Amino acid sequence: MDLKGYLKERCALVDEALERHLPAEDELPSSVHRAMRYSVFAGGKRVRPILMLAACDAVGGDTALALPAACAMEMIHTYSLIHDDLPAMDDDDFRRGRPTNHKVFGEAIAILAGDALLTEAFILISSPSYAAAVGSDRLLPVIHEIALCAGSRGMVGGQVVDMESEGNKEIDLATVQYIHTRKTGALIKASIKAGAVLGGANADAVKAVTRYGEAIGLAFQIADDILDIEGTTEQIGKDAGSDEARGKATYPAVLGLAESKRRAQELLDLAIEALSPFDHRADPLREIARYIVSRKS
Amino acid sequence: MDLKGYLKERCALVDEALERHLPAEDELPSSVHRAMRYSVFAGGKRVRPILMLAACDAVGGDTALALPAACAMEMIHTYSLIHDDLPAMDDDDFRRGRPTNHKVFGEAIAILAGDALLTEAFILISSPSYAAAVGSDRLLPVIHEIALCAGSRGMVGGQVVDMESEGNKEIDLATVQYIHTRKTGALIKASIKAGAVLGGANADAVKAVTRYGEAIGLAFQIADDILDIEGTTEQIGKDAGSDEARGKATYPAVLGLAESKRRAQELLDLAIEALSPFDHRADPLREIARYIVSRKS
Repeated sequence: MDLKGYLKERCALVDEALERHLPAEDELPSSVHRAMRYSVFAGGKRVRPILMLAACDAVGGDTALALPAACAMEMIHTYSLIHDDLPAMDDDDFRRGRPTNHKVFGEAIAILAGDALLTEAFILISSPSYAAAVGSDRLLPVIHEIALCAGSRGMVGGQVVDMESEGNKEIDLATVQYIHTRKTGALIKASIKAGAVLGGANADAVKAVTRYGEAIGLAFQIADDILDIEGTTEQIGKDAGSDEARGKATYPAVLGLAESKRRAQELLDLAIEALSPFDHRADPLREIARYIVSRKS
Repeated sequence: MDLKGYLKERCALVDEALERHLPAEDELPSSVHRAMRYSVFAGGKRVRPILMLAACDAVGGDTALALPAACAMEMIHTYSLIHDDLPAMDDDDFRRGRPTNHKVFGEAIAILAGDALLTEAFILISSPSYAAAVGSDRLLPVIHEIALCAGSRGMVGGQVVDMESEGNKEIDLATVQYIHTRKTGALIKASIKAGAVLGGANADAVKAVTRYGEAIGLAFQIADDILDIEGTTEQIGKDAGSDEARGKATYPAVLGLAESKRRAQELLDLAIEALSPFDHRADPLREIARYIVSRKS
């Protein structure tokens, strides 16, 4: 399959839906709505929403029913980037080559834009029209799953431990794994699981797709760690080698580069294996998994 | 009725439920869980949850079914206080006489504790056991209402305009009203509406109770503005006169003290009038409305 064309088409689908679902820039208070849109439309690759749609497709579901939840996941991902970049957190001035939210709108609006994006995600996935289309009984577990993955036992927890481990030379593999499965892994896994549930998958299919999600969620972050070492600043849109400079808890720091690459490959094999019950409709999931492990940006 | 005893008993009920629903302090990552609990158990009066339970009672509903949503509302209220107090926002060192969250845990953990509390609210109200007890079709509109009131068109929007208006000498009544109906009013109104819906009220009853909620939501903030002028520092737990010192957009600043008091009384009358279809089970709502307008702390 033409993965590049597929990703481009799906990216456009997600962008168009985000455009529809976010408050307009001129809606009051416009400062916060401009700040929300600035970061949502900052060149993100829409990995999480595309994975959710692909999981929905893989189980034979209706893509349209996964689209609002996919947008919600991108809003949550974006809020986490805005807050992570704040001076009190990672203190980053640039992301994907553009000034970070607080550099453009100031810290106060950046905090509030993050808060509003997280809230907007739940506004969107609990809307009456979405509930009518999906059915309340199917939608509620999806809302719960999305909330869980973003909370203090999920993404926020990963960020906390990541921050607290920075500069610690004695980080062990268990800690790195804790951080990675939560900070990036939680949202990716939840995206894929939610896609399957929204696609009407039975319990076994949801379980299989979730195993795929766990594997590539972790593989995605290991690949990111490797990229931080091997990629150029231009490729990755931030300073290459910045993880090491900051003393970040990464796979290469704990296991070395070669072993990290081996683990990423192992996780890829696991992910592909988990998809064995599915037919060609799971091909995008398979291709995305391969792309995640080998990507150069 | 013995309002003081009633509020005390309800406060204990909410506290006990919050204790059960929040992650334990020793659960990892404990820094963020300690920070969440520090602010949730910082002596709040539980106005929003108590109003939700009272609205549920007023329409003849089962209080227990409103309790998780009431806790969620308190989590959202607490997150907003933590973020509002941050150096980049109101930069407050004390709240209710105790050091603010970021003074104790640092800015990064305070931001994340706020994020996690907002998320925890949605984890709680979308939980499978709660959905089973309330019914998905009744619960989903409540989740939507709660998300809406907290977002950029609700509470966050109010905070944005409040911040942007600070120090502006030309504030008009429309702006003050915009801020007040959103910054405090939105959560109060949504609490009361959600209580009625969770209590199984019909559309007319929900509408009547919501009118009550709109009136006391605004009255609550006007009373707060008045208290900031007339109360002592000891009574209100922060510096008296701090709104004026900061050039905050308040009712007394725009309308004067006497007219602000008249408006608060008018809103109280409206609120009581809105409850006319209800029997003695709405007495707590009536008493709370009177208390809100006349309170001294």
